Amino acid sequence: MERTIQKQKAEKALSILMRARMKPNDRTNLSLSPIPLTNAKSQMQQQNSRQNESPGEGNSAPNDSGNSEREFKRVRASMHSAISMNKTEVLDDVLNNFSEGYFSLSHENRRKLLLVLAREYDLNRSQVRDLIKQYLGLELPADKAQVSGSEDEALFSSFYRIEKNLRHALQPVYEVLFERLNTHPGGLRILSILRDDILTILAEENIASLRALDAYLKEKFITWLSPAALELHQITWDDPASLLEKIVAYEAVHPISNLLDLKRRLGIGRRCFGYLHPAIPGEPLIFIEVALLKDVAQTIQEVLWDSPPIPESEATCALFYSISSTQPGLAGINLGKFLIKRVVTQVKREMPHISTFATLSPIPGFMSWLLSKLAASQVLAEGDNLSQPQAEGSSSTFYENILKPEEEEALMSLAKDTATGKNGMDLMFNLLTSTSSKWIHSPEHLSALKTPLMRLCARYLLQEKKRGKALDSVANFHLQNGAMVERINWMADRSEKGLSQSGGIMVNYVYRLDHIEEYAHSYFSNGEIHASNDLHRYVDVVENA
Amino acid sequence: MERTIQKQKAEKALSILMRARMKPNDRTNLSLSPIPLTNAKSQMQQQNSRQNESPGEGNSAPNDSGNSEREFKRVRASMHSAISMNKTEVLDDVLNNFSEGYFSLSHENRRKLLLVLAREYDLNRSQVRDLIKQYLGLELPADKAQVSGSEDEALFSSFYRIEKNLRHALQPVYEVLFERLNTHPGGLRILSILRDDILTILAEENIASLRALDAYLKEKFITWLSPAALELHQITWDDPASLLEKIVAYEAVHPISNLLDLKRRLGIGRRCFGYLHPAIPGEPLIFIEVALLKDVAQTIQEVLWDSPPIPESEATCALFYSISSTQPGLAGINLGKFLIKRVVTQVKREMPHISTFATLSPIPGFMSWLLSKLAASQVLAEGDNLSQPQAEGSSSTFYENILKPEEEEALMSLAKDTATGKNGMDLMFNLLTSTSSKWIHSPEHLSALKTPLMRLCARYLLQEKKRGKALDSVANFHLQNGAMVERINWMADRSEKGLSQSGGIMVNYVYRLDHIEEYAHSYFSNGEIHASNDLHRYVDVVENA
Repeated sequence: MERTIQKQKAEKALSILMRARMKPNDRTNLSLSPIPLTNAKSQMQQQNSRQNESPGEGNSAPNDSGNSEREFKRVRASMHSAISMNKTEVLDDVLNNFSEGYFSLSHENRRKLLLVLAREYDLNRSQVRDLIKQYLGLELPADKAQVSGSEDEALFSSFYRIEKNLRHALQPVYEVLFERLNTHPGGLRILSILRDDILTILAEENIASLRALDAYLKEKFITWLSPAALELHQITWDDPASLLEKIVAYEAVHPISNLLDLKRRLGIGRRCFGYLHPAIPGEPLIFIEVALLKDVAQTIQEVLWDSPPIPESEATCALFYSISSTQPGLAGINLGKFLIKRVVTQVKREMPHISTFATLSPIPGFMSWLLSKLAASQVLAEGDNLSQPQAEGSSSTFYENILKPEEEEALMSLAKDTATGKNGMDLMFNLLTSTSSKWIHSPEHLSALKTPLMRLCARYLLQEKKRGKALDSVANFHLQNGAMVERINWMADRSEKGLSQSGGIMVNYVYRLDHIEEYAHSYFSNGEIHASNDLHRYVDVVENA
Repeated sequence: MERTIQKQKAEKALSILMRARMKPNDRTNLSLSPIPLTNAKSQMQQQNSRQNESPGEGNSAPNDSGNSEREFKRVRASMHSAISMNKTEVLDDVLNNFSEGYFSLSHENRRKLLLVLAREYDLNRSQVRDLIKQYLGLELPADKAQVSGSEDEALFSSFYRIEKNLRHALQPVYEVLFERLNTHPGGLRILSILRDDILTILAEENIASLRALDAYLKEKFITWLSPAALELHQITWDDPASLLEKIVAYEAVHPISNLLDLKRRLGIGRRCFGYLHPAIPGEPLIFIEVALLKDVAQTIQEVLWDSPPIPESEATCALFYSISSTQPGLAGINLGKFLIKRVVTQVKREMPHISTFATLSPIPGFMSWLLSKLAASQVLAEGDNLSQPQAEGSSSTFYENILKPEEEEALMSLAKDTATGKNGMDLMFNLLTSTSSKWIHSPEHLSALKTPLMRLCARYLLQEKKRGKALDSVANFHLQNGAMVERINWMADRSEKGLSQSGGIMVNYVYRLDHIEEYAHSYFSNGEIHASNDLHRYVDVVENA
């Protein structure tokens, strides 16, 4: 009977899937790393609130005014009950009320409510002070800060007691709401939405109390979402359409264009794995797409559209070509690292003939880094005419010609009717920002741009850092997981997004099974980026220049 | 391929199941409530350590001497590494080493190791004192202990910072080991075994540092094992034999006598549900057995052995006749409450014609309570001859005749060759403690005992308390979950255990769906025990006497 209902649900969802536009045109906010897609998220949220499992059923349209204040007070009251009720009271109803209410709030009211939570359900500071006084009143034997033998046991038992009480007193009151929601069916999803809202607010304003709440909630998530508690699930064409629909909606790297595309990504020569959590059923928290290939692919075209897949028994390479997380509220919790580790183990066990584990990844920050370099030099190049003082040494800080003389020359010798600029960098800036990336249709432009773009891309990946970590978010993700930079591929992704973010270049990171921990460690402790000789060669040329 | 392996495993386990003695004779340590079976546990542990998933593979035989000290030092060193290593280092190997090492330790070495953990990986108390000093140095505006507006934000940010640091500093160092093991495949199981060992030690000696460690670990378990993270699984005859084998081994209330018995408990008219956790695959943490019946059963015989099951469509009652937990290390973590709630929801959804949710439960503490009452009065009855001073009022404290005059009379009029005693209570004591419960084979004895035993059983269930809670552990379990005491049944369990623990009586607790929360609340807040009129009648007779 249960199964029949599930089947009916699946059929319904499938019919929606068949009718739905699979690739909305307004997907502008695409994310390229495990940081997920904001658009898809709010889209899904609305879908969810229409589904019957969702606490927000029927309440998804925010009130814009009028009864807005009344609404806020009602949700605030249910939040208060959810926190202050005795644990044996009718908590389920209260938590449902709160969840439904929260869904129905406008953005502004959610902000107000979260600030109330952060400020008024904080610590009981006078209780903390009382306990601290008791604690300081205890006599600590001068020579030891730890119990060493049974004779000290009695002495230390008052330490244990007050330390425990102090630990509890230092937990903010909102801890109760978090723990209760986590225990409640559907609660983890609400908490993930709550944190998504918090992150959105914090991106605009720096509010100390809310930041403290966020840090606390993030620690909670890390405990709850232990990878040991997550189920690795291979997503196949036999999965319910309601789950497959989510893969389509959340695929953040290479949008799924139609049903055939989806079927191919789940069929022969392909794998898709997700992490499922029992509290968020039917929806992976994060998923990864894998292609089984003879060689490490150089372009995304061969993975997504070219030629039929090879027989799986002939594959020697598992290529991770997409990883997407579905819960923006779980930002900063690295589930991808554990997912990759488990997928590698799983694939190795199933297909021992596979020896290479690599990615084909975008370089999402490359163009914005490059264009800002080019733009800055452009401005300063103009400033040159104003005879600014140019101290030696400082010149390179303010005006770095990132082009080599032969690159500059090649660029400047392009036909003037299609490419103009005061100097190489200026010209390069104009070419790269021309409407609809005209440069990729011109063999001359492509050939003049290839050398500097590939070299600068290698420099960007290996040398550009922020706080000791790779500047590029996807690079940082794979490097902290223990991968190395193996190869960069010219014209590997000619999609609009691929051109505008990565200059059409894609990179292969490789996970060398016997070096993963070592590489992760040296990256973590001194920011060392392991890369192939191929990659170093691009950069060494610069250094020797 | 994965499936083939699983199938092979299942077949192997099934063959073990068929050969194995299903009901060992030496099952003496049977537990009757969600507190599990110590025997089965250590048995399972040995089995586990023989399986290839177990970290303790091949190491299950404890070293008894000689290299014992070396062994201890090795495991201690791996424990130290597991705690102190940088998080990107080769943690997996270290955690595996520690787990395997721990398995191989003798009981005495485990005790030593756990004390080292509790004492030497405790708090950094000087760091705590430093932070406390910083904290006391902060100026708290006299009139407010909480942030109320954005102008206070800046003021409070140093509070947030130091409070967070203090919270972290108050976490014992062993927190790291717990969190790392929880993240590690198989780690949750190790932690559960660790806690089992701790509870065993604490049952013998009261060691403050170890008690503090236990309290801390218990809190961790409660967070990790959120019922929302547990999967409700209906256990059927189609489940792998490796799982079914565990049901047989852990069934703590009514041992499963053979394969047919097991098959019947999973067949038509029966249900079995378990909570599975992804980190402990293939083994429910707790499971419950349900019979679908026309009426609430009065004896365990009708549930386990009588007549074929009725068609499920005719059932109106779901009877919970057994609930067993499999992890002694999770003692004190009430998973049963959530399990019952979810099973009720699931059964109601599947079979809306079922309107009664009841249990048929043992009263495991009844006989030991009754015998101690009878024995005490026996001693004091002898003391009477020594003309002890008997102040008014105090007499009832020291010598309470728990029998009513007509009960006393009926007992004293039994044939003297089979039943002797100075008075009714003395005679009752002798009858109940006679070898192999001879009294149940004599219609006269049965008839003379029935009235006092049933009445005293009702009194025991409704009135005997410890710290405001029902003295009987199973009664306390169901009452705190929101059940009421509906009916007690004479000669409902004639098994050796049933007679020696519950005097052959069983009790039906009933879960009234619209009163569960209310009953749980009044029991929690003022120890009120809800019971049927039938049950009150037994007790009221006493009070009116």
